[in-house]
Amino acid sequence: MSENISVLGLGLMGSALAESLLAAGHRVTVWNRSPDKAEPLVAKGATRAATPAQAVGASELVIVCVLDYPAVREVLEDAPLRGRVVVNLTTGRPVEARETATWAAGRGADYLDGGIMAVPYMIAKPGALILYSGSRTAYDRHEEVLAVMAEPRYVDPDPGMAPLLDLAMLTGMYGQIAGFLAAAALVTSAKYPLTEFTGTLLVPWLNAMAASEPATAAAIESGDHRTEVSNLEINRVGMDNLIRTFREQGVRPDLLIPMKTILDQRVARGLGHEGLSGLVEELRIG
Amino acid sequence: MSENISVLGLGLMGSALAESLLAAGHRVTVWNRSPDKAEPLVAKGATRAATPAQAVGASELVIVCVLDYPAVREVLEDAPLRGRVVVNLTTGRPVEARETATWAAGRGADYLDGGIMAVPYMIAKPGALILYSGSRTAYDRHEEVLAVMAEPRYVDPDPGMAPLLDLAMLTGMYGQIAGFLAAAALVTSAKYPLTEFTGTLLVPWLNAMAASEPATAAAIESGDHRTEVSNLEINRVGMDNLIRTFREQGVRPDLLIPMKTILDQRVARGLGHEGLSGLVEELRIG
Ligand SMILES: NC(=O)c1ccc[n+]([C@@H]2O[C@H](COP(=O)([O-])OP(=O)(O)OC[C@H]3O[C@@H](n4cnc5c(N)ncnc54)[C@H](OP(=O)(O)O)[C@@H]3O)[C@@H](O)[C@H]2O)c1
Ligand SMILES: NC(=O)c1ccc[n+]([C@@H]2O[C@H](COP(=O)([O-])OP(=O)(O)OC[C@H]3O[C@@H](n4cnc5c(N)ncnc54)[C@H](OP(=O)(O)O)[C@@H]3O)[C@@H](O)[C@H]2O)c1
Repeated sequence: MSENISVLGLGLMGSALAESLLAAGHRVTVWNRSPDKAEPLVAKGATRAATPAQAVGASELVIVCVLDYPAVREVLEDAPLRGRVVVNLTTGRPVEARETATWAAGRGADYLDGGIMAVPYMIAKPGALILYSGSRTAYDRHEEVLAVMAEPRYVDPDPGMAPLLDLAMLTGMYGQIAGFLAAAALVTSAKYPLTEFTGTLLVPWLNAMAASEPATAAAIESGDHRTEVSNLEINRVGMDNLIRTFREQGVRPDLLIPMKTILDQRVARGLGHEGLSGLVEELRIG
Repeated sequence: MSENISVLGLGLMGSALAESLLAAGHRVTVWNRSPDKAEPLVAKGATRAATPAQAVGASELVIVCVLDYPAVREVLEDAPLRGRVVVNLTTGRPVEARETATWAAGRGADYLDGGIMAVPYMIAKPGALILYSGSRTAYDRHEEVLAVMAEPRYVDPDPGMAPLLDLAMLTGMYGQIAGFLAAAALVTSAKYPLTEFTGTLLVPWLNAMAASEPATAAAIESGDHRTEVSNLEINRVGMDNLIRTFREQGVRPDLLIPMKTILDQRVARGLGHEGLSGLVEELRIG
């Protein structure tokens, strides 16, 4: 069924979102601070709104995707939010999402916060995922439309949860990237062909190792850090070998140092017989 | 064809290796410093040697898997190495492998160094991999036997290359683990179910992100760090968001800090428009 949807913010991501909704046959009203970015969408059948208030007035479902949360507030400040559903797909911190949900509720709007796990060209393609948290009613009411942009996943009534899980996924990604960059520096220092190493050795190995993470997660949840495979003492010896090799190869081991530090800390507490899952305890403050 | 093979060092790994060779029908002679560890293998048909010299004398192909390289030298010191092929599957640093190759050559032995990418229970099962470097002749001559223990992969004539690539794969793994641990601390701080997050969100995401690493590797090899997807400036903003969220959630961001530091360094050089591949340049000394 064709629905009215407004999209505010037509940067790379907002434009991709609006385009996917148009392609699915919805009636899309668009607004962007710099008006020229609306033109390609208008050419594809979108209606241009002159102001955010006009865009919000045109649809019950209002999607916002701008630079950051201060920009979201600026854009929605003078808009008639009562009775609308605001879906905020701007990236931000959990506390900002919670504040914005409260602010929107104060103006009579239902609020969903979203974390986009995709780049613009992946929108409406398999593999793109958007996490949602906040109003379950709003999610259930609009799930079908949301599914046009990317696979939607509702995670929690706390509006901060989608941004938090989004950031947790980015955290995992940055760790993986850091490990890859350090490995790449080591491999190129030995003049071994890096693309071959990465495609035929590293990536299959990382995929195999990632498969064991749910078991480590279960150990973290249970607090039972016993292991029969690879204890912290063995990992510490391996890490020392690694860091020495980095130095011998003229490569900075900087990206590995905090992992070594928490390994050392944990072993110094007399817990060298435990598994890697126990290291999470070292990351909790207080 | 059944061959004579000697295995020196019967810890968890050496025992698994010897057992796989026995199961494949080879005539296996075994030696271990503490003799009792030979018993289960003798019960399965292995011949026990009283000394390392006797073990080395029994076969052309001599596999050594002990704690570290100093132990390798200690074990082989008085053995008749001339005309033998020494396959050293002990974990160590590239420089140690090169020194040991030279030392073995001085005693008339051919030398292969190996890096085992598996834990003992994976030996002789699909997914287990052993990297080999050093004498190509020795590798070609014994590839079929080596294939019994794990998928063998010859990588380079430099005997240090298998240990180097082994350590590079471990580096990638430690980065992935560090990212997972930090993500786990964040997710549990919000009381979201961690095993579900890991299995349904994080692991598929990491697998998808790993698939882009060969392209990043190609950029590193070419030195062309231009990007149209995700430049360093954008990543720096994302990283700042992340670190602030860690603090707001009462979680130490320590594991992310060096990645932030090299991002900041690279942006400070005026290269914020480049992609993540350029960060490798910051890791090279001199
Ligand atoms: N691109 C990605 O790969 C990706 C992936 C996941 C999430 N996201 C998130 O999606 C959001 C948008 O990203 P993008 O890639 O579309 O960025 P972008 O191409 O840089 O576009 C930024 C958008 O924000 C608008 N904007 C900035 N400040 C504003 C203000 N004060 N008032 C009104 N509008 C303002 C810009 O308007 P003007 O055109 O007038 O400047 C533009 O429409 C960000 O939160 C980003 O983190 C992006
Ligand atoms: N286990 C794994 O998951 C794994 C994976 C990849 C690589 N590796 C590598 O494989 C090698 C062996 O590991 P492992 O798991 O079998 O360890 P392990 O169970 O601790 O066994 C160590 C072996 O080394 C021997 N040894 C130690 N010092 C010695 C010395 N000075 N002289 C003679 N023998 C000595 C021990 O003899 P005693 O029995 O007399 O003490 C024992 O046979 C290590 O380099 C390890 O890094 C292991």
